[in-house]
Formats: sequence, C-alpha cells, structure tokens
Amino acid sequence: IDAEDAAALTVLLDPLHPADIADLIEQFDDRHRRVFLEVWGSEIDGEILSELREGLREEVILALPQETLSDAVRDLDSDDVVDLLEDLEESQQALILGALPAIDRAQIEQALAFPEYSAGRLMQREVVRAPEHWDVGQTIDFLRAADNELPDQFYHIMLVDPRMRPIGYVALGRMLSSPRSTRLADITEDSFRTFGVEQPEAEVAYAFNQYHLISAPVIDAEERLVGVITIDDAMAVLDEEAEEDILRLAGVGEGSLSDRVIDTTRQRLPWLAVNLVTAIMASLVIAQFEGVITQIVALAVLMPIVASMGGNAGTQSLTVAVRAIATRDLTGSNVWRVVRREAGVGLVNGLIFAVVMGLVGLFWFSSPQLGYVIGLAMVVNLVIAGLAGILVPVALDKVGVDPALASGAFVTTVTDVVGFFAFLGLASVILL
Amino acid sequence: IDAEDAAALTVLLDPLHPADIADLIEQFDDRHRRVFLEVWGSEIDGEILSELREGLREEVILALPQETLSDAVRDLDSDDVVDLLEDLEESQQALILGALPAIDRAQIEQALAFPEYSAGRLMQREVVRAPEHWDVGQTIDFLRAADNELPDQFYHIMLVDPRMRPIGYVALGRMLSSPRSTRLADITEDSFRTFGVEQPEAEVAYAFNQYHLISAPVIDAEERLVGVITIDDAMAVLDEEAEEDILRLAGVGEGSLSDRVIDTTRQRLPWLAVNLVTAIMASLVIAQFEGVITQIVALAVLMPIVASMGGNAGTQSLTVAVRAIATRDLTGSNVWRVVRREAGVGLVNGLIFAVVMGLVGLFWFSSPQLGYVIGLAMVVNLVIAGLAGILVPVALDKVGVDPALASGAFVTTVTDVVGFFAFLGLASVILL
Repeated sequence: IDAEDAAALTVLLDPLHPADIADLIEQFDDRHRRVFLEVWGSEIDGEILSELREGLREEVILALPQETLSDAVRDLDSDDVVDLLEDLEESQQALILGALPAIDRAQIEQALAFPEYSAGRLMQREVVRAPEHWDVGQTIDFLRAADNELPDQFYHIMLVDPRMRPIGYVALGRMLSSPRSTRLADITEDSFRTFGVEQPEAEVAYAFNQYHLISAPVIDAEERLVGVITIDDAMAVLDEEAEEDILRLAGVGEGSLSDRVIDTTRQRLPWLAVNLVTAIMASLVIAQFEGVITQIVALAVLMPIVASMGGNAGTQSLTVAVRAIATRDLTGSNVWRVVRREAGVGLVNGLIFAVVMGLVGLFWFSSPQLGYVIGLAMVVNLVIAGLAGILVPVALDKVGVDPALASGAFVTTVTDVVGFFAFLGLASVILL
Repeated sequence: IDAEDAAALTVLLDPLHPADIADLIEQFDDRHRRVFLEVWGSEIDGEILSELREGLREEVILALPQETLSDAVRDLDSDDVVDLLEDLEESQQALILGALPAIDRAQIEQALAFPEYSAGRLMQREVVRAPEHWDVGQTIDFLRAADNELPDQFYHIMLVDPRMRPIGYVALGRMLSSPRSTRLADITEDSFRTFGVEQPEAEVAYAFNQYHLISAPVIDAEERLVGVITIDDAMAVLDEEAEEDILRLAGVGEGSLSDRVIDTTRQRLPWLAVNLVTAIMASLVIAQFEGVITQIVALAVLMPIVASMGGNAGTQSLTVAVRAIATRDLTGSNVWRVVRREAGVGLVNGLIFAVVMGLVGLFWFSSPQLGYVIGLAMVVNLVIAGLAGILVPVALDKVGVDPALASGAFVTTVTDVVGFFAFLGLASVILL
C-alpha cells in the first residue's frame, strides 16, 4: 500500500477516525512512516496530531510542511493546541503559534505559562457562561446567536457573578427540559466544584472520577472563571496516571512500542543498574558465609528460594500500597492498621510456606535441621517483606518521591539481604 | 465521634459527597463500622451504596434495615441498581427487587440476564430519544413536558427510525444553539457509534477513550435501541481495568486495604505458591552443579546476580507487552518487529552489564575466567529475558488467558532456570 499512491491511501483512510489513523502511524516502522509522511503528510490534520503519542508527534510535526501544520492547528480547541505545543522546542512552538490568530495565540501563550501537569494546562479556554440573573429563554437565544463561537463540546452553562466568578452551573439537559421563564440560578446542579489553575492535573482527574463530574470550571487566583475542564481530558489523565504507575513499578519509565532499540535500552538501563547494585549487596551478604556454603552445599541450592519468596511477597505488598496511595485509600488514619495487617499476612504466609519448605528440606536433603532453618528464614523474610512493602512506599511518599518509581528497588534490597542473611546466618548457628 | 451520637454524625456527614462518605466507611475498622451502621445506617442512601467497593457493599447491605434499603434503591438510575445487585446472592437480590415498582423491576431483571461485564450490564435503560423527523422545537417541547421522567444526566438525544433503531444523535449543546425549525437529522454528530448488548465492557471503555465519546446507544440483536452508556461509567471501567492489570501483574488479585488478614492471605497465597514451584525448579538446576559450587564457592556468591538481572529485565519487557496488549497497541502486524526489538534491547543491555560484571568478577575474585563466565551468562540471560517477556504474554493472549495474570510466573521461571543454568553450566565448562 505504501507504494506511494496518495489517492488510494486517502480512499482507505478517509472512513477512519483520527485516533485510528494515529494508531496506524504509530505501528509503521521507521521506513514506512517516512514514506507515508511524504506521500500523505499534507492530509494530516490537527486531530490526528492530537492523537499521536508524544515522542512520535514531534517527529511527525518536523516532517510536515509548514502550511499543513498551520491549517492543522487552526481547527483545534485551545486545550488540544496546548497539549500539542507543550512537548515541542521553543523554535517549533513559535512556528506554530505564528500560524494562529492573535487572540488565540495570546490564550495559548498564557496557558503555556501555567506549570506542567496543572489544571491550567488541561483546561480549554472556550467557556459557555451566562450572568446569574438570566433565565432559560435568554440563554437559549444567546446560544443561538453565538452558534459559531461555541466550543465543539460543552455540557454545562457556567453561571458567573458580575466579577466573573463562577457560582454554579446548569446541565444542558436540565435547561432543555425547563420552561423559558425558569431562572438559571434555580436549576443549578449540586455537583458543582471549581479547580484552581495551579492544581495538579492528577488531583483534578481524581475528583472527576470520585464525584462523577462531567465538566468543571477553572478559576484563577482572583477566583475568576478562566476555563473549563471536561471529562474526556480528565479520563485521559487518569488513564496516563495508571499507565505510568504500571510502567514505573516495573522499572520501565515512559516509552512505547515504536521506540527504537537504543531509546528503549536507555529507558530500561537505569533500573537494571539499580538492580545490579541491589544484587551485589545481596552477594556481599552471601560472601560472608562462604565457609558455611563450602561445608554444606545444599545451602547454595536452597538459598534463592528464600530470597525469591521474600521478593514476591514484598512486591505484592508494595503494589497494593502504591496503588492505595495513588487512589488516596491509604491515609494517615489507617496506615498503622494496614501495617499491622501486612505483618499479619506475612506471618501467616510465612508459617504456611515454612511448613512446606521445611518438608522439602527434610525430604530432599534428609536433614530436619535444614528444614528448621529454611522454615524459620521463610517466616522472618515474609514478615519483613510485608513490612517493607508498606513502610517503604509510605516513607517515600512522605518525603515527596513517587513511590511507584523507587519502592521496588528498596524493597527488593531489603528482602534479598534479609533473606540471605536470615537463611545463611541461621544455618551457620544451627547446622555447624 | 462514634460515641453513638447520630445527630452529631449527620451534621458532620451532611456536607460530604456520597463518594466521600463511602470512602470513610471503607476506612473504618470492623468495630467502628458496626457501630457506625447501627447508629447512622438508616441515613445511608443509594448513592453511598453505589460508591462502596464490592466486598464491603454486601456487608453493609446485610446490616441495613429492609426499609432503608428499599428507599435507597428506588432513587437510583437503572445502571446503578444493576451494579448494586449483580454481586449479591439471589435471595438478597429478590429482597431489593421486591422494593421496586414493577416496570423498573422487569428492566433490572432483563439487565441482569446479560452476561457479566457486558455493555448490557453497563448501560442505563433511561434513554432520551426522538423520531428522526422531529425538529429542535418539537424536541424541546417534548423534553419540557417529560421533565420528571428524564434521566439524571444525559448529553445526547438519540434519533431513532420507526423500528426503534438508532440512526444518529444530537449533542445538547448543538441543539440549544440551533433555531427551533432546524431538523434534528441535520445536526447529528459524526462521533456516533453503537454497541451491542453483549459486547464486553472493556471494549466499550476502550472505544470511549479512543474516540472521545460522551454517550453511546446500546442495541440488541435486532438493532433496536435498548439503552445508553455514558462516559462516567466507561471511565470507571477503564480505571478498574488498569487497576486489575497492576494488581494481577504483582500477583495480588482483587482485594483492598480493608480486607482482613485472612482474606488478604488467601488472595496472595496462590501466587506465592506458584513462585515456590518456580523457585524450586531453579534450585533443581543449581543442584545439578553442586560439585562445581563446592570447588568454586564464588559461584554461589555471584549466581543470584545473573538470575536477578534476568528477572528484572524480563519483568520490564513483559509489563510493556501486557500493557500494549491491553491498549491494543501490540497487534499481529507489529509483533515480530517488537520481538526483534526486545531481543536487541536484551543484547545491548546484556553486553553493557556483561562488561560491568566481568570487571566485578575480575577484581572481586581476581579471576578473569570468572569474569568471562558471568559476562557471557548475563548476555544469554538478558536476551532470553527480553524474548520471554514478549513471547509469553503474546502466547497467553492467543490462547485466551489474561497475560497480566499468568505471564509473571512463566517469565520468572524462564529467567531463573536459564540464568542459573547458563552461569553454572558455563562455569563448569570453562573453569574446571
């Protein structure tokens, strides 16, 4: 298909949604993508650009002719333009901004002045608002007159006082079903909440999900209405946050399938390096017991089991803790209860697997003492794993480090070191 | 506060959103919760019940007086009632259904007949629809007359043909800004898509996110309109899916902070048991090389490093693969490219850490041969880890097993076995 036939491509791609076209572009390999952009680049519009993921978007923007780019950007709502621009370098930003009418440009520049990942970046500037004293009829007449200037999608009319401070909102459905004489102020919704421009977008997304919001006004430091955030943007943020947590927990960092080997290697290397340090620390513990191992080689055979069980139990606790922190289920008031519970779970699981491994030790190596040792080490390590799994992320969160990012390394270090030390230490006391 | 003072509680809780009250109930420990339900139970309404997480909701429902429960359920939209009922046992379901008017009850029973996690369960039955030939004025008059029967929230008017098949929808904002004489059929939105009642909810949520839908009609086998799904429900599903993936990747299964020790232990035990089998298999590999280890105890010191690096690299690849499958970024057309890339990343990272570990082996144990061995084993294991990390989840997905659930165990087995075998095997060939 990439036989450079632009017309045929248009026929094929025309019925597709921009999001699907963007996915297609992401799935091409480098060579196909280059050819595709040469042949069909001029057809790419703003919506397709919005749907591309960040790394690739920059590449595509650079490859597009200036004119296509300007056309593409002019159709978009202000929040999408901001989203598009924020990852570009300044010279490229200037290029795109130049293509916009002066008013839009000023708005976008203002939005870019807000901190990254803030409500100010997420919101769109186009707001449908009405003075608080209007009735339904007046508002409908106003909307009919303003048809061309309305945003693509809106779900509420924001009521503002004379100082432009939002004081409530009216759902469109409610407005449509009310007589023309109804005052807007009498049919506002209870769910109304405002966000500050500087509020982190993660908080905004959490509130949308928690309170089932559809749209919400954003206010500046003087409490004036400056924009509105809609649920689809909040949904995207929520999705990204969860994705980020998953990837960070696995030590992957941001990245995607279409990255090249070299980029992917660079993303994954740091975490592997951290893990190497961890593993070497565990080896140093083992090295202390070289003498014991030489005498009882069965210890070398069994020791990875204790460490591995501890590592897994620790990962279980820490994943639950990291997510509970992210979803605000783990708070100051219940943290000690959860800590006690994790210790309890570690103890119960430890006892169960102590019995199992004790029997394995006994029958495999015909040594009851070896059974005691591995069983005891298992209990110790699983309790410690449970405690580390909860205390490490809570502590990291307290000092302002993202627990999803760093917990894994700490917890594995603890469980490896404790696992080897408990097993080999007990062995040298009991078996020698 | 739980000094059994219901009036004081009401004053405190009244300004709170139902979702926040539900969170509070979740954070209480068992004893507090019991007291709370006794004292304040009769104030609990349907919205609070909807917001509780599943396990706890059943407990609360059992504790509530029958009358409170009936009142609570009567206020809810049909999708929320279904959500409430689907986790309860049949006798409890009958109890609640008995409290509903006959028409509602029939609707709910129909919804419960759809498969779990289907669009039919997710949708609400209350749909605002209009014949395709209506104009804006007629529709507004109709809505004003029907005010009391409209759903709490709706964002589109569904257009239906005489056979009740949905053929398009009109956004409320668009309708409000159009003159009364405009035909609805002329202002429909492009984003229109329908879902079948049997379609899995995960697919629906994906489509909402991908195509920025706000609401979408659900049709039965005869293509008739039977309900509508709104974005807040889709957002909740998306959130649950991501959460499920995170917890499954860590081998935790469903569960929450308020579960008791015994429940949590039961959730985590199976995965630890699987891991034990894995670890024992790795030990069996080590046992084959007992002779070598007795001669060179340094091998016992270093061998966990190779296995641990492989395990981490494997987890990185598999996490990316599992998420890519979930978000439909990994498809038949790019799987081989991704496999090549993972092998490449494994090779590059393997070479880098081979050099590092080779030097560690050399200086720590003053043995260049030991350095070669561990370096070579590192390369082998990281390449295998990359391949297993992508091939295992893809294969599991092909045979219909959730890759998030089972990949971890397989990949760790592979990296442990390969890691120990490569390192100790190479050692016995090169060093002896």
